[in-house]
Amino acid sequence: MAADEPRPCEHLAIDGAIRDDARARLRSIRGHVDGILRMLDRDDVYCVDALKQIKAVNGALAKTGDLILRGHLKHHVTTAHERGDEDAIVAELMDVLKYR
Amino acid sequence: MAADEPRPCEHLAIDGAIRDDARARLRSIRGHVDGILRMLDRDDVYCVDALKQIKAVNGALAKTGDLILRGHLKHHVTTAHERGDEDAIVAELMDVLKYR
Amino acid sequence: MAADEPRPCEHLAIDGAIRDDARARLRSIRGHVDGILRMLDRDDVYCVDALKQIKAVNGALAKTGDLILRGHLKHHVTTAHERGDEDAIVAELMDVLKYR
Amino acid sequence: MAADEPRPCEHLAIDGAIRDDARARLRSIRGHVDGILRMLDRDDVYCVDALKQIKAVNGALAKTGDLILRGHLKHHVTTAHERGDEDAIVAELMDVLKYR
Repeated sequence: MAADEPRPCEHLAIDGAIRDDARARLRSIRGHVDGILRMLDRDDVYCVDALKQIKAVNGALAKTGDLILRGHLKHHVTTAHERGDEDAIVAELMDVLKYR
Repeated sequence: MAADEPRPCEHLAIDGAIRDDARARLRSIRGHVDGILRMLDRDDVYCVDALKQIKAVNGALAKTGDLILRGHLKHHVTTAHERGDEDAIVAELMDVLKYR
Repeated sequence: MAADEPRPCEHLAIDGAIRDDARARLRSIRGHVDGILRMLDRDDVYCVDALKQIKAVNGALAKTGDLILRGHLKHHVTTAHERGDEDAIVAELMDVLKYR
Repeated sequence: MAADEPRPCEHLAIDGAIRDDARARLRSIRGHVDGILRMLDRDDVYCVDALKQIKAVNGALAKTGDLILRGHLKHHVTTAHERGDEDAIVAELMDVLKYR
């Protein structure tokens, strides 16, 4: 989205408790990525062990996304008709969700 | 959901034009599945050819789901706060979306 | 892939028992798609009920794909080095698997 | 897998060039996660902007996984029949791949 296009809901922020939860999860994810980097320092690391770790990080990221998505639906999407920005909010959400 | 639990929005139906579009897509998907079944009648069918067809059906199903999801967001989710069923509508939607 | 390009393993077919299992699953999937089509004949069908059915078909398709993939790995990929077609067989498999 | 079970291919390591490429990608992913953490320090961050960043990290992780998977298929799976560990190598690979 270009910087000067009108953006739906740019005054609508992530709920504080959700933001804290997401930060804690992302710090854990960063630690997990660090762990995979250390694992890959060893020259005998086995492919499937690395793939399992990547899959685990992927699952943790998906849960973080679900947390933010749930908050967005509850706090911003369910009120969009009242604000009158439902077309914009649905369009940008589908853009993030499609084919996930 | 148990049959006698109150359901959010049970009076809220899929929009007619979306329903027609989804039906057309699902008839095409059924035809595609029939095509894979015919392909699998041959005893020399190659695994990767079958996997490609399954992937194509999967993509067509995902697009059909996205179509219905977009309509649900626009017609039912963005108005949930006004109706007062936002908790129920978000819970059931997350149940369908999570980890897609 | 163009019809006259050399194809890896085109003489390698899906194992008979796997083919039978995949056909049974695809017939069930076709029945499930028919069920969604009947559901969509009703003008009061609720979006989330349709999305749940699409998700279920998606899961059934994924299991069918996994079945064929497992057979392909076992019967064709693990023997590719002996046949000398490992580059081709890995390239076409990654093409189907990537971003699944 | 229990620690004392025989593991397929435990002497088979990720190819050096692939390991270097995966490390570079994971360092970039870690930087991206740091970027999302900084973004979430701001109390006016918008949900969809965070979701877009999470989706981007997800895509980068998937590409890293595909890179390692391609190497595993080429260097370890296509030679499994010659080594005689094809059942074990297929079982553990399907465990990582299924439903991805």
